[in-house]
Amino acid sequence: MPAPGLSPLQSGLPAAAAGLGAHVLARALSAGVEAAADAPPGTVPDTAPGVVPEAVPAPPVRAGLPSAPVHPFKAPQAAPAAVPAEVPAPELPASEAPVPEVAAAPAAVAPLERILRGPSGLGTAGLSLARREEAPAPSPSAGGGAPAVGSPIPGLYHHPIPEPDPVRVEEVSRRIKAWAEDEVDLYPDDWEDEFDGFVVGRYMVGCHPDAPTVDHLMVATRLMVAENAVDDVYCEDHGGSPVGLGGRLLLAHTALDPLHTTKEYRPAWAESLYADAPRRSYRSAMEYFLRLATPSQADRFRHDMARLHLGYLAEASWAETDHVPEVWEYLSMRQFNNFRPCPTITDTVGGYELPADLHAQPAMQRVIALAGNATTIVNDLYSYTKELASPGLHLNLPVVIARREDLPIKEAYLKAVEVHNELMHEFESEAAALAAACPVPSVSRFLRGVAAWVDGNHHWHQTNTYRYSLPDFW
Amino acid sequence: MPAPGLSPLQSGLPAAAAGLGAHVLARALSAGVEAAADAPPGTVPDTAPGVVPEAVPAPPVRAGLPSAPVHPFKAPQAAPAAVPAEVPAPELPASEAPVPEVAAAPAAVAPLERILRGPSGLGTAGLSLARREEAPAPSPSAGGGAPAVGSPIPGLYHHPIPEPDPVRVEEVSRRIKAWAEDEVDLYPDDWEDEFDGFVVGRYMVGCHPDAPTVDHLMVATRLMVAENAVDDVYCEDHGGSPVGLGGRLLLAHTALDPLHTTKEYRPAWAESLYADAPRRSYRSAMEYFLRLATPSQADRFRHDMARLHLGYLAEASWAETDHVPEVWEYLSMRQFNNFRPCPTITDTVGGYELPADLHAQPAMQRVIALAGNATTIVNDLYSYTKELASPGLHLNLPVVIARREDLPIKEAYLKAVEVHNELMHEFESEAAALAAACPVPSVSRFLRGVAAWVDGNHHWHQTNTYRYSLPDFW
Repeated sequence: MPAPGLSPLQSGLPAAAAGLGAHVLARALSAGVEAAADAPPGTVPDTAPGVVPEAVPAPPVRAGLPSAPVHPFKAPQAAPAAVPAEVPAPELPASEAPVPEVAAAPAAVAPLERILRGPSGLGTAGLSLARREEAPAPSPSAGGGAPAVGSPIPGLYHHPIPEPDPVRVEEVSRRIKAWAEDEVDLYPDDWEDEFDGFVVGRYMVGCHPDAPTVDHLMVATRLMVAENAVDDVYCEDHGGSPVGLGGRLLLAHTALDPLHTTKEYRPAWAESLYADAPRRSYRSAMEYFLRLATPSQADRFRHDMARLHLGYLAEASWAETDHVPEVWEYLSMRQFNNFRPCPTITDTVGGYELPADLHAQPAMQRVIALAGNATTIVNDLYSYTKELASPGLHLNLPVVIARREDLPIKEAYLKAVEVHNELMHEFESEAAALAAACPVPSVSRFLRGVAAWVDGNHHWHQTNTYRYSLPDFW
Repeated sequence: MPAPGLSPLQSGLPAAAAGLGAHVLARALSAGVEAAADAPPGTVPDTAPGVVPEAVPAPPVRAGLPSAPVHPFKAPQAAPAAVPAEVPAPELPASEAPVPEVAAAPAAVAPLERILRGPSGLGTAGLSLARREEAPAPSPSAGGGAPAVGSPIPGLYHHPIPEPDPVRVEEVSRRIKAWAEDEVDLYPDDWEDEFDGFVVGRYMVGCHPDAPTVDHLMVATRLMVAENAVDDVYCEDHGGSPVGLGGRLLLAHTALDPLHTTKEYRPAWAESLYADAPRRSYRSAMEYFLRLATPSQADRFRHDMARLHLGYLAEASWAETDHVPEVWEYLSMRQFNNFRPCPTITDTVGGYELPADLHAQPAMQRVIALAGNATTIVNDLYSYTKELASPGLHLNLPVVIARREDLPIKEAYLKAVEVHNELMHEFESEAAALAAACPVPSVSRFLRGVAAWVDGNHHWHQTNTYRYSLPDFW
């Protein structure tokens, strides 16, 4: 007999969805699964989408310097390239954006053409929050060297998006720079160009088309900058090293997941959170995040950040011992050293909550992991040439495939594209199946938010030509 | 305006509790917060508490060999000591055990006497699942050298418990050995004594007095053995090293938090989970755990294990660089390299669920962290002399206090006892406040489950005299 008043153990999706109340499901079924982008009551008051409250001219968004980003949060480095044209294509506010109808590919279409055509598969039409562009597909068989600057990787399955709303981009760019300089003292003066080149405002506006306000966008943007700072300063180019990294990352992690200790020792810990830029930025970004996030959303984020830090430490341990992992080992590490913490806050940034019991479902965990893995391999592919140019052996998927499977690097790169594409297709089909199996509005919107993040992430990589250029493999 | 059908963002305990349904709260308030220990329907059928299904004589539980456990999951090592008398004091099944009334200490009682008297403080009477023994308090002022073998640390605030149910201990001991040898091939033949000396069956029966069946106890026991194996083989004595640890721990972590990758690379990963004893035991223990746990409980456990692995890696990075951390740094690391994954599965082992939204509340997170920190410092204190005898500098709280605060080791040890006591008192007062603020049955039972784990953990450390002996500081 179950104990009176205790929650029975639930093991499946139907039970978890039922726990949300039958009325939610009934409403979802009768009204469809569409969701508006309005902020719920109780969140920080802010501007309406696309409306900037203060008429302060935003600093020009410099298109940045290139980098050698083996990490998802990599800051740009030295080595100039062409500035991409900023095309101000005002985006519809998310709440007004029509859900695109994407034609399913005919069964007879050749695989590559199907891939280049854009999203397909049962149920994927609903997996977009924003209008997806019908961009002309680059031809992988055109030959003649590397694709044009700013082109997508030939053969890479992806969904073009419109240029992120320039009004929002300007305002987020202005605010994030003020935060970095005035609130957390993020960088010395000579790193300012790198910060600007990260173009993080454009990145986050593109990834969160349904954010109800700029304040919501700022939550994502601060965390992205903070994650980038930790990776840069502790792990990589700005003084980082594999040696002692475990201690540094753990102490930084306490800015997200606080220490509970005695009265005597607590003050020294609290003071330590101001000791360097990584900790200052983690602490502050988390404080802002907690103003909008529920406790369960905060717990989810902490978990994803613990995963990220484990991933950094695995990669560092291999660097320290000059170990080239097997491909499956590399893919395991990269599931942790991964963009995952960014798409999984899509509901907080969108002003709603995917309930914890639905987030924890194995089907949802699988969808999130697949999406994170696809976005992270996008990073490996776009940053490949920069990593070639940097000293030492930078692990990325093409390099690991070439070394471990004894393939020419061009073949290895193209195989890595196929790995990405399989992960993307698997993400989309599993997301569609989950949306059909669990017609709860927050589930559908969350899945579309993750898909929007995937698309926005690709767009940023494709168009950030100061950071990325493509190899000559076609 | 909130979007129709979306879950509003909840920020506080009342909202989260209300989300469980007003009827639950009302029932809790009208019926009290007591909960029976019966298993809910749908769990694995098993024996009733205290009833062993098969009349197979259990192998004798050897009281083990001592060890140098800087880690909570440390296996015993060589160096004989006296065998403690096994006092078979049959315990009442948890469902019949009266909730003890524990007298609050008069305000005028001297602090030390109050500490030695047992549980105190508003609301702590309900923070016990099992009968607590009224053991004679050891006098810290008796002088004359080290306390008797098997005595508690003088001045250590703790709650004695009865000897764990010997019928259950025998059955769990029999089953865990069969699992270790037949299912996961845990150790070579010459490690058998160490395994027996861990006395893990007695440990887990003592920590989970409300487990409805032996199957539930086995879930906790397998995970404890697996965690111990990972620590031993990867981090410590049996071939472990700080070098390359990040890669090893991450790959082991995928046995808990699986890889989602392409069809080509998945089989090699799946096969890797059988490659060594740590991964075999993680994989199998997790598989059994998932049969009883809800998805949210599994997510919680994965998060705690990611924390644990981060803690291992921080400690390893300090060992590699011969860094002696500041006391607050050590306490930060020890909040991660911590028993936490063990008490937080108390609801799964008890056959009920603390809802995810209540688990994530900051007040609950604080209680869990404080309890975990207190139990982990118990390990530092009981293992102190063994660590002194082992090669190299083993970090533990007394050693770090002595080094960083320039104190004689005796004073540092006694200060570490005070650190523990403050954490215990803080745990108990915060748990009592939370139980009062959130009178939901699963919250009260979970808090009592954590408290029972704290008491059982102390009992195991105190009585495991093959592993532990006390210094001569009184």
